[in-house]
Amino acid sequence: MTQRVLNFNPGPAALPLVVLEQVKMEMLDFRGSGMSVLEISHRSKSFESVLDSAIQRVKRLLGLGEGYQVLFIQGGASLQFSMVPLNLAAAGRPADYVNTGSWAAKAIKEARALGKDVRVVATSEDKEFTFIPEKVPVNADAAYLHITSNNTIRGTQWGSFPDSGAVPLVSDMSSDIFSRRFDPHPFGLIYAGAQKNIGPAGVTLVIVREDMLERVHREIPTMLKYTTYSENKSLYNTPPCFSIYVCELVLKWIEETIGGLDLMEKINNEKARLLYDYIDSQDFYRGTARPDSRSRMNVTFLLPEAALEKEFLAGADEKGLVGLKGHRSVGGLRASIYNATTIEAVKSLVDYMKHFAAKRG
Amino acid sequence: MTQRVLNFNPGPAALPLVVLEQVKMEMLDFRGSGMSVLEISHRSKSFESVLDSAIQRVKRLLGLGEGYQVLFIQGGASLQFSMVPLNLAAAGRPADYVNTGSWAAKAIKEARALGKDVRVVATSEDKEFTFIPEKVPVNADAAYLHITSNNTIRGTQWGSFPDSGAVPLVSDMSSDIFSRRFDPHPFGLIYAGAQKNIGPAGVTLVIVREDMLERVHREIPTMLKYTTYSENKSLYNTPPCFSIYVCELVLKWIEETIGGLDLMEKINNEKARLLYDYIDSQDFYRGTARPDSRSRMNVTFLLPEAALEKEFLAGADEKGLVGLKGHRSVGGLRASIYNATTIEAVKSLVDYMKHFAAKRG
Repeated sequence: MTQRVLNFNPGPAALPLVVLEQVKMEMLDFRGSGMSVLEISHRSKSFESVLDSAIQRVKRLLGLGEGYQVLFIQGGASLQFSMVPLNLAAAGRPADYVNTGSWAAKAIKEARALGKDVRVVATSEDKEFTFIPEKVPVNADAAYLHITSNNTIRGTQWGSFPDSGAVPLVSDMSSDIFSRRFDPHPFGLIYAGAQKNIGPAGVTLVIVREDMLERVHREIPTMLKYTTYSENKSLYNTPPCFSIYVCELVLKWIEETIGGLDLMEKINNEKARLLYDYIDSQDFYRGTARPDSRSRMNVTFLLPEAALEKEFLAGADEKGLVGLKGHRSVGGLRASIYNATTIEAVKSLVDYMKHFAAKRG
Repeated sequence: MTQRVLNFNPGPAALPLVVLEQVKMEMLDFRGSGMSVLEISHRSKSFESVLDSAIQRVKRLLGLGEGYQVLFIQGGASLQFSMVPLNLAAAGRPADYVNTGSWAAKAIKEARALGKDVRVVATSEDKEFTFIPEKVPVNADAAYLHITSNNTIRGTQWGSFPDSGAVPLVSDMSSDIFSRRFDPHPFGLIYAGAQKNIGPAGVTLVIVREDMLERVHREIPTMLKYTTYSENKSLYNTPPCFSIYVCELVLKWIEETIGGLDLMEKINNEKARLLYDYIDSQDFYRGTARPDSRSRMNVTFLLPEAALEKEFLAGADEKGLVGLKGHRSVGGLRASIYNATTIEAVKSLVDYMKHFAAKRG
């Protein structure tokens, strides 16, 4: 008998139970093929239909319309930190970045390592990345303006995106894609490691506006060129089939079970509201992000003393609430409440927080 | 009720049924964690124990001893075609390659695209890649000598590896690793996409001799440097956890169910013998590889007329024998008989071939 826990992991993270049940059910026989999804050819009709469906669901959910390509690439957001400047930062055009924490800093580092002319146009480093810069200078000569839409470690998130005019926005959306509605048209490229809001680790969703593909140079190694994926529907070589298959199921769940992005966003807002309202209503716990920059995906908070954290985590674990430890680089506590985390799970967490505060407050 | 077919796919390919059954069984609750293996942290003790076990099993199965690192990298063998020259082809030292078909040619192309000084020291291109060159000139100044141990498309395989003296061998072993015993010590680096003999698509096993790591330059993008993986036990960023987990189960199956590499090789030899003995005993089917270069993993053959192929494949399909079509670049027929293909499956195939020959011969 399965005793499932309430999973607040920052990624890999909770997946919808109905998705896991379907994966389990068809593990030995993928839709009448007599083979596991792990054994079918990536060039079979049955896999191609999974891939096509995943692409169409991404387009429908985000309202992409024409002019965008949906790609599935291996290597995580970390490989995108290099692929973005390699493909899009044309010679003589600086690449602008906003530094909102560890992941943004890594993106900046990789662009610089490639010898690109990188400008950090805004940063929240002076206040320990606890906020999202309000004013982002836009330079008309920039190849692109790179932002990290949600910062898992510091618990901050862009509420609205900077108006970059004709300069294409590029965003790492690993930890909040499909969590809310946004206008995709200012974005030249969006990338997202799957393991938070889309599916299992091992695949990165890349959405690229077709005019960006004209920048891709011939000399880039084949597997690092966006055109290799756009020209071959992500099937130049064997893709990570299983991860794409699970992503398709998760996207289907958002579309058909939840009912689309607006309803998904409503649920996510409610989950975040429950936690932040409670945090703001008392003085035992203290949120770490500036209220106007708070993330609706990763709620970071502190106890009155760091020494209590171990007890808090052990007590949570006993109640089946797992994954609440803050990132090793900053400490504290963090509840990651991605799409698959239910309102009920968040209520259980708030109950536990109240209980712990009453005991130790 | 599951009706499993006999799967002769070239990759992604058949996996051991017991492995699939275990994946299915623990899909909702990974070893008492209350989470799916798709939901656990890559930094959790339970995932680290999977990763450690996979590494140790690779070392034991291949008899690596000290001085080798076992890495798990995304991007497939196709990304290795670039990573190998990027990391190992030091300035002023040419990289030597043997061209035995499509995959070798792609490796050569990527090395050249990086501006490396590439020498093709032997090739079987003049005879349509139907054999493995016997004599491979070894140049003492070479950074490495690259070979493709098994050629899935042409159905050829190196019986023994060239004696390269002090020049490290580098091999793409995607389609025959763990299928037979070999001496790993002449190899500076071995890479293998998992989806043929090790597990599902989405992860590439890389085995690197530690002295090779000294060649890795600082300026290479982080995700393309072997040292990023060797220094972080493949956990610099989120690895493809599920694929590694299935690989560990397959490696365990080779070690514990089959009983090790020598017994695995014996079974593989028997499977190949059954097919080649039958092909050599009649004149309806004709093998395409030169007998001394025949692959024990991919048995390629022709019918008297290409026009009969469609009927052959349809009849096979009816009997639950799938994946027998030759690669789209060469046509004909191909039975891929990797580790997970059973002797019984091969016997069923030979029976069907006899039946079809009797009907159409």
